[in-house]
Amino acid sequence: MFGNPLYAEKINDAIANIDLPETPKKLYDPIIYILSLSGKRVRPQLVLMGGAVFGYDRLDDLLPASTCVEYFHNFSLIHDDIMDKAPLRRGKDTVHQKWDDNVAILSGDALLVKAYSELAKCPSDKIAELLKVFNQMALGVCEGQQMDMDFEERTDVKEEEYIEMIRLKTSVLLGGALELGAIIAGADQLNRQLIYDFGVNLGIAFQLQDDILDAFGNPADFGKQVGGDIIVNKKTILHILLKNALVGIDVADFERILSLSAVDSEVKVSEMKKMYEKYEILGLANALKEYYTSLAYQNLEQMDVPNERKADLHQLANTLINRIR
Amino acid sequence: MFGNPLYAEKINDAIANIDLPETPKKLYDPIIYILSLSGKRVRPQLVLMGGAVFGYDRLDDLLPASTCVEYFHNFSLIHDDIMDKAPLRRGKDTVHQKWDDNVAILSGDALLVKAYSELAKCPSDKIAELLKVFNQMALGVCEGQQMDMDFEERTDVKEEEYIEMIRLKTSVLLGGALELGAIIAGADQLNRQLIYDFGVNLGIAFQLQDDILDAFGNPADFGKQVGGDIIVNKKTILHILLKNALVGIDVADFERILSLSAVDSEVKVSEMKKMYEKYEILGLANALKEYYTSLAYQNLEQMDVPNERKADLHQLANTLINRIR
Repeated sequence: MFGNPLYAEKINDAIANIDLPETPKKLYDPIIYILSLSGKRVRPQLVLMGGAVFGYDRLDDLLPASTCVEYFHNFSLIHDDIMDKAPLRRGKDTVHQKWDDNVAILSGDALLVKAYSELAKCPSDKIAELLKVFNQMALGVCEGQQMDMDFEERTDVKEEEYIEMIRLKTSVLLGGALELGAIIAGADQLNRQLIYDFGVNLGIAFQLQDDILDAFGNPADFGKQVGGDIIVNKKTILHILLKNALVGIDVADFERILSLSAVDSEVKVSEMKKMYEKYEILGLANALKEYYTSLAYQNLEQMDVPNERKADLHQLANTLINRIR
Repeated sequence: MFGNPLYAEKINDAIANIDLPETPKKLYDPIIYILSLSGKRVRPQLVLMGGAVFGYDRLDDLLPASTCVEYFHNFSLIHDDIMDKAPLRRGKDTVHQKWDDNVAILSGDALLVKAYSELAKCPSDKIAELLKVFNQMALGVCEGQQMDMDFEERTDVKEEEYIEMIRLKTSVLLGGALELGAIIAGADQLNRQLIYDFGVNLGIAFQLQDDILDAFGNPADFGKQVGGDIIVNKKTILHILLKNALVGIDVADFERILSLSAVDSEVKVSEMKKMYEKYEILGLANALKEYYTSLAYQNLEQMDVPNERKADLHQLANTLINRIR
């Protein structure tokens, strides 16, 4: 169980009781299916924490925004998996794999609409503001996904562009979730900005840790194949930092390693990691992660609420950033 | 120009000035593109008419809901065209044809979010109610599209099921557009229900007319190949009414005509139309269309506003239902 067990339980109950018609089955079964591949429910918990930190304890008033965020997240998973041609999600068939692309497109659309239906159940004097913030966040996530796809075809991605991509694709949803809770709690503009920034900076640090673990995680802890990103030449922060640092014959050698077949995956991973070591990429990436982590803690520090109320968010940040898998 | 020229101009201006970032280009260019394949702007005009009939004349307050509906319609076109593998839309390349499926999925998603961004600009005391009505409508459109795809694989579609499908896929958007305008105008529940029903019944009649024209339109007026639906065995109301009426050897003969290749399209169309004539299907379909037309006029009649304000809606209904192309 991740985060606050009471929150997780409330959220899982709400999601299990999602109100959907019986038919058309091909529209609604995939929604039930993706929601049942229960992740850690990080994002919907953020909504509840974003309310609680400002002293708001009416969980039932926060819950629709919370499920809204979880539905949105799952909508984006369904559509991203089509675009990435991913066969598996959390160890199970993706929606387009289990059904087909058309079913995945349309049930994703319906799930996005359901996210907005949850928003419509929020405290009515807050809906206009929630809708504005949610839309901006949602459009950002679409932009991030497009940038990610654009990067696949480019070899000159800069560090700043990569950070901007993960900010949009991953982090604005974390910041947005926290801000939705803060809005319902009646937080002022400055506090809203701080908690949003906290989530965004935390999200960037989280994603950088993700890239780092993929190459440098302990195989015993990591749970999946270490070096998976290297094998498919994924443009992670490590890849980008290295590429921009290369000098002399290493430029060509890097290209040679990239061209190694995935069949010789052990060789490929080991050679690439040697080059990461030569250029001290792990240290660079960790420093970057620490930078965003510090920004996040600073945002948390500056929030104008009693320290004891920040405990959940502190613990969350520690868990997300220091995870080993 | 369709409908009210002032309305059409206002709407086209607003759409031409859609507020979109420059990048990512592959996310936003397709949105500009699909919106520029200007259709008749029927749906956004309905929002303005739905306000005007209740005496509301602040066009600028109605305009965001109006563009919201047009964006939603175009989102659904982008995604439907992927699902239907359609190469052309209004004589131009579809988005997935001009770019690719991934671009069409994601830019469609972004356009759906933009629709909700327009909703967020509506008069703030009305947003909660508008959001609820819009979500219900949007989910209905998804259901209709799924039913339509399900029907392709079925041979036992009943008349009622077909009507339910076109109600959802086409008509709830017309009813919903009118109701959004009525909500902003402050119409009461009964009037809102009446104008919604008017739009839905009109939409069903419109779609039935569409099916009828495809087989029985005058080639000189129709503008595209008469019999297109017959050639591809599309399950139109004519197809369904005929199939359910067949007796004796005609059951097998109908199957034989269905199996005729599209290469012999003239033969196929002419044989199928002979069978339509034998079973008087045109008369049946027209009667069904008249039924929904009468319901629509009845709804309009019952609306509690001075008759002179209903002129636009009357004219609209006449234009849509009596069109010859």
